[in-house]
Amino acid sequence: MPLPHPASSSRPADTALLAALREQLGEAGVLTGRDTDGYVEDWRGLYRGRTMAVVRPADTDAVAAAVRLCVQHRVAIVPQGGNTSMVGGASPHADGSEIVLSLSRLNRVRGVDPVDMTLSVEAGVTLQAAQAAAREAGCLLPLSISSEGSAQIGGVLATNAGGNNTVRYGNARELVLGVEAVLPDGQVFNGMRRLRKDNTGYAVRHLLVGSEGTLGIITAAVLQLAPQPRSVEVALCGVASPEAALALFSEFRRRDPSAIQAFEFMSGTGMALVTSLIDGATLPLAETAPHYVLVELASGRETAGLRELIEEVIGQALEDGSVADAVVAESGAQRAAIWRLREEHSEAQKRAGASVKNDVSVPVSKVPELIARATAACEALVPGVRIAPFGHLGDGNIHFNLIQPADMTREAFLARDHEIMDTVCAVVRTLDGSFSAEHGVGMLKPYMMPDWRGGAELDAMRRIKQAFDPLDLFNPGKLLP
Amino acid sequence: MPLPHPASSSRPADTALLAALREQLGEAGVLTGRDTDGYVEDWRGLYRGRTMAVVRPADTDAVAAAVRLCVQHRVAIVPQGGNTSMVGGASPHADGSEIVLSLSRLNRVRGVDPVDMTLSVEAGVTLQAAQAAAREAGCLLPLSISSEGSAQIGGVLATNAGGNNTVRYGNARELVLGVEAVLPDGQVFNGMRRLRKDNTGYAVRHLLVGSEGTLGIITAAVLQLAPQPRSVEVALCGVASPEAALALFSEFRRRDPSAIQAFEFMSGTGMALVTSLIDGATLPLAETAPHYVLVELASGRETAGLRELIEEVIGQALEDGSVADAVVAESGAQRAAIWRLREEHSEAQKRAGASVKNDVSVPVSKVPELIARATAACEALVPGVRIAPFGHLGDGNIHFNLIQPADMTREAFLARDHEIMDTVCAVVRTLDGSFSAEHGVGMLKPYMMPDWRGGAELDAMRRIKQAFDPLDLFNPGKLLP
Repeated sequence: MPLPHPASSSRPADTALLAALREQLGEAGVLTGRDTDGYVEDWRGLYRGRTMAVVRPADTDAVAAAVRLCVQHRVAIVPQGGNTSMVGGASPHADGSEIVLSLSRLNRVRGVDPVDMTLSVEAGVTLQAAQAAAREAGCLLPLSISSEGSAQIGGVLATNAGGNNTVRYGNARELVLGVEAVLPDGQVFNGMRRLRKDNTGYAVRHLLVGSEGTLGIITAAVLQLAPQPRSVEVALCGVASPEAALALFSEFRRRDPSAIQAFEFMSGTGMALVTSLIDGATLPLAETAPHYVLVELASGRETAGLRELIEEVIGQALEDGSVADAVVAESGAQRAAIWRLREEHSEAQKRAGASVKNDVSVPVSKVPELIARATAACEALVPGVRIAPFGHLGDGNIHFNLIQPADMTREAFLARDHEIMDTVCAVVRTLDGSFSAEHGVGMLKPYMMPDWRGGAELDAMRRIKQAFDPLDLFNPGKLLP
Repeated sequence: MPLPHPASSSRPADTALLAALREQLGEAGVLTGRDTDGYVEDWRGLYRGRTMAVVRPADTDAVAAAVRLCVQHRVAIVPQGGNTSMVGGASPHADGSEIVLSLSRLNRVRGVDPVDMTLSVEAGVTLQAAQAAAREAGCLLPLSISSEGSAQIGGVLATNAGGNNTVRYGNARELVLGVEAVLPDGQVFNGMRRLRKDNTGYAVRHLLVGSEGTLGIITAAVLQLAPQPRSVEVALCGVASPEAALALFSEFRRRDPSAIQAFEFMSGTGMALVTSLIDGATLPLAETAPHYVLVELASGRETAGLRELIEEVIGQALEDGSVADAVVAESGAQRAAIWRLREEHSEAQKRAGASVKNDVSVPVSKVPELIARATAACEALVPGVRIAPFGHLGDGNIHFNLIQPADMTREAFLARDHEIMDTVCAVVRTLDGSFSAEHGVGMLKPYMMPDWRGGAELDAMRRIKQAFDPLDLFNPGKLLP
């Protein structure tokens, strides 16, 4: 059911703004009416908003000019990249009073330096295109998320994205050497430095990273690259318990944390959904297990002894019984097949019915307790619910997902989503965890901020927002309650 | 020549504050007059200030109480840890109007978790004591600076300290998972989380780290640890040029950046000073070289193939002529002897005469150009000056130090220190570098901020300062101009 469009706002002030924006950006730079369709609904279909216009500046100066015009007319701005937010962070509100500012046309790779191992890219470059630019220079951009074909660098940094390789290289934040952004005062913050050490004042770039477009609009960034791995080992292990999975991680980390490229946990329930619902997905082990672990080791060297390491650690775990069965991939095809079992988790869960997703984190040592207690609490709350936690054990980041019971309707299950989320989060809270590990706050979770980040912390955040954006025109209603 | 002390200020308002502080902290918690001697002069003797009192709270709540009293009386606070700033960041001004707040009594290790590999320490714990606590738990706190015996965690984080292992583990910032701090509004910011992923609002902790006590007083932190290395290789190489040193670094990084524990550059001039002025320091190579490189590789594994790696890369460099001569240490004693050549650089330069120090950074690829151009410019400016750059090549961070010419007096040379610094910084500027890589801004360099970090960036910093500390009572006159 298509929504009505405020194709041309009736407010004279808005008409004047649109005219000024068209003069500044050209006709092609300002979309209205039906042309805004692709920008007002998020990809999951959770948020449908409206907008008086989508502006599409072609470079940083044009972004700054558009910002100055909007501020002058007191019209709020929703910055948007690939529109892949999980929490409605890039969606306009329903009242149509906001401008969507798309960064898609800022899509140039400004430079790559294989000696410094740095990549300078504009905000509208997709993560996949940035990875390709790094690869062409013989390097690795060690950031990988499932939406990388659409997600753009600006949004990736504005949300401090995580992903599979965070255990080794850190979040997006840790890869950012420099940032360029347009601030709410219309100035261009030019912090495109590519220095590994620079102690000259406040870390403004770290404030912009993760601020979800509420403090500034990131227009470009300098990213730190790594060398391409030259040796890789991947194993799949069946384990008796989350405790055994944690013990295996600890042993790999004790031996060599810098070799761990990924360490992923999967529940037996989730794996059964993948092998039964996804064509060609088969378990390469003799028997099923209560839980599974995928471990990937990598090194820039061909002779780093990774095969010995993975066989030694898993061999020892097989001996002491903490790993029931395991397979180490013998080829690229086998590695891909093992990774597919992990990557198809979301698709398999989707096919299995309605699901409630929780992107939570706890200290790594608390992951087993999180899984045990949240599982018990949810089973008591919704008898028969299928519980399929999976994710980045090495970071303490578990996607604690629940799928509707077989004997419950989709609607009846989804009606209880907030109850379920609150139940999971109550456990996370007692373990000093976070209600949003890698997806951010967006429009979905600001209501949780006072309870979780209240007092001095939320006060400080509000003061920062006020200092940068006193008129509350940059992505209002996102991140802060 | 001892300075006069404002032993008890004559202002009635100050008398009232001191009485209130004594009531709050006890007599032992408030030092005045001669008892403040150890706090008002910095360790290099560059800054001699005065203070109406040194307060020494014993815990976080007492810090907050002291802050609230000072704010109520509109008296400024200089937070101080080990008093080892290189830029006067922890020194009170000469007018005696400020309170020095020492964190030394907050010296508890709150906890260490070997599974999470995290260490929770209070601000007054010395870096050395924190390293020891990590070691007792079988872990490594991978942060090492020459002042670590005195420097305290609070100051280390407030200045985002660097050091020899930054090339592998990052600056202090990268090791900080959580922070506790007292803010200028008197509230305790409790951010002592130990999560590797947490996207719930602005990165307040990253704002506090590196803010040099101007936004908050760090009272405790959670630090990420690493495993203790189980294999280490150290080599010293004589190289023909900075270009050859960079090529060697690039080759090690291409092979395995996660194996590089340190990569240090030393000039031939500096090495000659060390071997001639330091007892027992001898060059373990057959001949002297124009420049030197110290490379340390390390791994958590005993069988990581580091010996093969170091021999292969250096062997290849010997063959192609970029390395003239090299030695790989065969024992712990030999490793220590090689490291001593690097560590004695400061002492040897001190013995050689007056020196002008520049803690600068450039993109790693620009280090050879920095050294060539700054050397030429300084030789033209002060004929006969001895130029002895050394430092963290792997981070692009060079201590570009100059020692007085043999035929010039100490005074005549030091009279030109600003001229020399400006000359070096002019070169750094054209290479998109930084005028302070790891020492911070403090009292020494705020005047450089408008020129280097002006426009939108400095505006943003001023707004942040205003938002946190509207009365300018937290370390005024530091960092910002």
